[in-house]
Amino acid sequence: MRSDGDSSGFSACVRRAWYVACASSELRDKVLARTLLGTPIVLFRGPEGKPGALLDRCAHRNAPLSVGRVVDQRIECLYHGWQFGTDGRCLKIPGLCAEMEQKIARHVPRFAVLEQDGFVWVYATPDVDPQGKPFSVPSLGEGGVEVRRIVQVESPLHAALENALDVPHTAVLHRGLFRGVREPQRIKARVSRTAEGVQAEYLGEPRPEGIGARILSPSGGVVTHFDRFILPSIAQVEYRLGSEVHFLVNSICTPVDDYLTRIHAVISFRTRFPGWLVKILLNPVATRIFKQDAYILKVQGENLRRFGGEHYASTAIDVLGLQIARLLRRAETGAADAEEAPEEWSREIELDV
Amino acid sequence: MRSDGDSSGFSACVRRAWYVACASSELRDKVLARTLLGTPIVLFRGPEGKPGALLDRCAHRNAPLSVGRVVDQRIECLYHGWQFGTDGRCLKIPGLCAEMEQKIARHVPRFAVLEQDGFVWVYATPDVDPQGKPFSVPSLGEGGVEVRRIVQVESPLHAALENALDVPHTAVLHRGLFRGVREPQRIKARVSRTAEGVQAEYLGEPRPEGIGARILSPSGGVVTHFDRFILPSIAQVEYRLGSEVHFLVNSICTPVDDYLTRIHAVISFRTRFPGWLVKILLNPVATRIFKQDAYILKVQGENLRRFGGEHYASTAIDVLGLQIARLLRRAETGAADAEEAPEEWSREIELDV
Amino acid sequence: MRSDGDSSGFSACVRRAWYVACASSELRDKVLARTLLGTPIVLFRGPEGKPGALLDRCAHRNAPLSVGRVVDQRIECLYHGWQFGTDGRCLKIPGLCAEMEQKIARHVPRFAVLEQDGFVWVYATPDVDPQGKPFSVPSLGEGGVEVRRIVQVESPLHAALENALDVPHTAVLHRGLFRGVREPQRIKARVSRTAEGVQAEYLGEPRPEGIGARILSPSGGVVTHFDRFILPSIAQVEYRLGSEVHFLVNSICTPVDDYLTRIHAVISFRTRFPGWLVKILLNPVATRIFKQDAYILKVQGENLRRFGGEHYASTAIDVLGLQIARLLRRAETGAADAEEAPEEWSREIELDV
Repeated sequence: MRSDGDSSGFSACVRRAWYVACASSELRDKVLARTLLGTPIVLFRGPEGKPGALLDRCAHRNAPLSVGRVVDQRIECLYHGWQFGTDGRCLKIPGLCAEMEQKIARHVPRFAVLEQDGFVWVYATPDVDPQGKPFSVPSLGEGGVEVRRIVQVESPLHAALENALDVPHTAVLHRGLFRGVREPQRIKARVSRTAEGVQAEYLGEPRPEGIGARILSPSGGVVTHFDRFILPSIAQVEYRLGSEVHFLVNSICTPVDDYLTRIHAVISFRTRFPGWLVKILLNPVATRIFKQDAYILKVQGENLRRFGGEHYASTAIDVLGLQIARLLRRAETGAADAEEAPEEWSREIELDV
Repeated sequence: MRSDGDSSGFSACVRRAWYVACASSELRDKVLARTLLGTPIVLFRGPEGKPGALLDRCAHRNAPLSVGRVVDQRIECLYHGWQFGTDGRCLKIPGLCAEMEQKIARHVPRFAVLEQDGFVWVYATPDVDPQGKPFSVPSLGEGGVEVRRIVQVESPLHAALENALDVPHTAVLHRGLFRGVREPQRIKARVSRTAEGVQAEYLGEPRPEGIGARILSPSGGVVTHFDRFILPSIAQVEYRLGSEVHFLVNSICTPVDDYLTRIHAVISFRTRFPGWLVKILLNPVATRIFKQDAYILKVQGENLRRFGGEHYASTAIDVLGLQIARLLRRAETGAADAEEAPEEWSREIELDV
Repeated sequence: MRSDGDSSGFSACVRRAWYVACASSELRDKVLARTLLGTPIVLFRGPEGKPGALLDRCAHRNAPLSVGRVVDQRIECLYHGWQFGTDGRCLKIPGLCAEMEQKIARHVPRFAVLEQDGFVWVYATPDVDPQGKPFSVPSLGEGGVEVRRIVQVESPLHAALENALDVPHTAVLHRGLFRGVREPQRIKARVSRTAEGVQAEYLGEPRPEGIGARILSPSGGVVTHFDRFILPSIAQVEYRLGSEVHFLVNSICTPVDDYLTRIHAVISFRTRFPGWLVKILLNPVATRIFKQDAYILKVQGENLRRFGGEHYASTAIDVLGLQIARLLRRAETGAADAEEAPEEWSREIELDV
């Protein structure tokens, strides 16, 4: 049971924020149904192809608009043919003789929409014109290759984010694929508050010893590695091996429901090999890693659900998890970020990888 | 979780009323399980073939009586063989040596039953001998042909009733089958309170232009059209085209559960064609219309459920919907109908069909 | 939603008691997931093969330990590789540089375990070292043959226990298999409180006339028959026919969830036939009897659920059912058994079987 602006159940989701509702290529001349923070939304393209996002409920008899069709850049309800523009206003009521009055009760709540970087971004609070812009997907510039993937994990948003930015699990859950082959080596992580969230910079990290890393950088070399959480829902991992290898993975997460997260991953890289070759070589490894993560997130999510919530213990090497949860809670309640000076926030920890 | 007389969840259902539990032909020498307003009921035939209806729960260890059998015109529980008559009294307890005392705790709540017009009607409040009679299904008299159909729609009772009596959706949802082909034409509807509910009479309505109407009345002619809601759960549509075509559709609805309604439709007609021919011609059209209605009611019901209730906007051409809901609520709470004089109640509205 | 020691939903289950979690043979070198009174538990073998039972939730990120593996007689979480001993203490955190402190928050609640009579018994309250011992499965001594079976019934614990110890239903539900063929005959039952529960002794009972009994004791003879409920969850049925036939059936029940009971049945017997022959002859009958019981318990359980609880009527021949429920409730609330003198408690009833 969800109402228009209900946030019950979402203990750590920011409702006053932009999320990816779908890839631009998924929204063509047909309506598209999506769920965002538990709220059913219908997407369609209006005048000049601009996308609109309305609550997926006709104002009249509450049929889902997503079973309707697009007519004259409006969405038409299948039941009685009421038509709505991308602004949610009712523009036609078949059979009604009176002048079309703009009664507010006949409007459908609408969500601000912005098409950017190949994504349709939707602002999760209805009937609001937000000041801020969605996250701008960075590019590696010339020579960069980009791959996009959409995956769903049956897990709460913050568990998915923590997983995407967590180092220690890679040597266990992904043993042999990425880390966990050789003897652990002590490194440092510098954790600091950034303007948009929190980041960890790993210092002294050896080249990952998995198959993937050996292919890309046979000679080893110095590793630069950043993990960044960017509010409200982006996990960014950046790797450089020497000067020739550069990887940037943006996992742009959409909280679908309490226990379902949709991830639009944008993987950008630059290596000394042609892009198509790297894709062929890395694809099987990436697929296995993802399947392992999706599995553990699913069983973790099931456990959180059957135990009725979280009961976590953390250690120093849970580098970003607690910060992600804390920042989400703060952002959710609208606590001013200004109170907190970024400087207070930098500290170093040690871990064995 | 339901108890015997619990009405929770049913926001607009009259419990002190008769409903069709099944067609007479469905109840033979075996037990039959049915649900009425969320209450599980078991039906069987007792002495002289008279139907009985008991709560589907043995008084002893609460096994469902509907997995038992009929023995000596009594229903026998499969577990310990307790036997009950159509009045709910326990008549046999195998193994018990003492005299059979008529302890009330050993009775099963029973529901008044009346077999009439080929239906087994059950009064939805247990252990009550109701004053009133069930709805009497009207007949068209000599030359009339009758067709019966049982269909289930996954929708609340009042949504199913409104759908059955709603004109505007026919030009959209059923476009081309019934209405919605030619240019809309302005007509009037006179809405008035009747002794048993509310009706709409359509004035100046042209012959419906769909396939069905063209077959039946190729020459057109004056249309007489009434839509009637008859408390607590009957939707009646009456059409006359000239003097030779007469259609009367009684949709006798049974609220099975909050979001499930069973409809016993009795379609009576008289035309200048033989009945078998009309059946052959109209059957495919009727089937398509029903499928479209069942689909929209299902997705509407799903939406009401996921949004936690209704959030309707209405216009003047929602001719009967609000009245149906209002009369159901009044009847449910037992508000005296007498307060309201039928005269207060007649008014005209315009619509384009 | 369950928390560690939550007993909500279990209206008649004793949490401070031992239950069979699995047969010894089911727990080998792999982890085993079980549910006990709604609580997910993971079982594994630690040092010297001794079984351990922990809450199935890693202290770290709450992944289920049951998807992990056993390493060095410890259980290792699949996600980050945390390792726990059979005492629930965290013994390894991969990647952590600091000394392993024994912080209580890093422990997983553990359940006392005892391997006895071929079963792994688990005490249902975590982090407790119980005084008492589990039920000791009796043996028939020399010449006795033992058969074990594990079955699940979709029913609450007390409904399964009552079913196992109830005589009257055998002539109805199992008509012809066990009882219910000849004319009923009046016998007596002496019901008395025992140190561990309650028992019924049947006096003057003729040899059961079903197929099974006729095979075992063609000449008839005097029957000795006891039905015993042993707290908290054992139903024991003992039959002797003359001096040569002795049957002892222990149904050791495990309340898995509110509506699911797992039964470890230990069937011991001594007859004048070889054990293998008796098994071949009785197996088909036993299987049919069990299927009938499982079916009625399932539909009874469904009815209890949909009606929101029990609404039972009882008679004198419901010999043990009410006592089982009463003793379970007393034991659950910890009411002292001492208040009640066993003498107060012996009484005779008559029934026809």
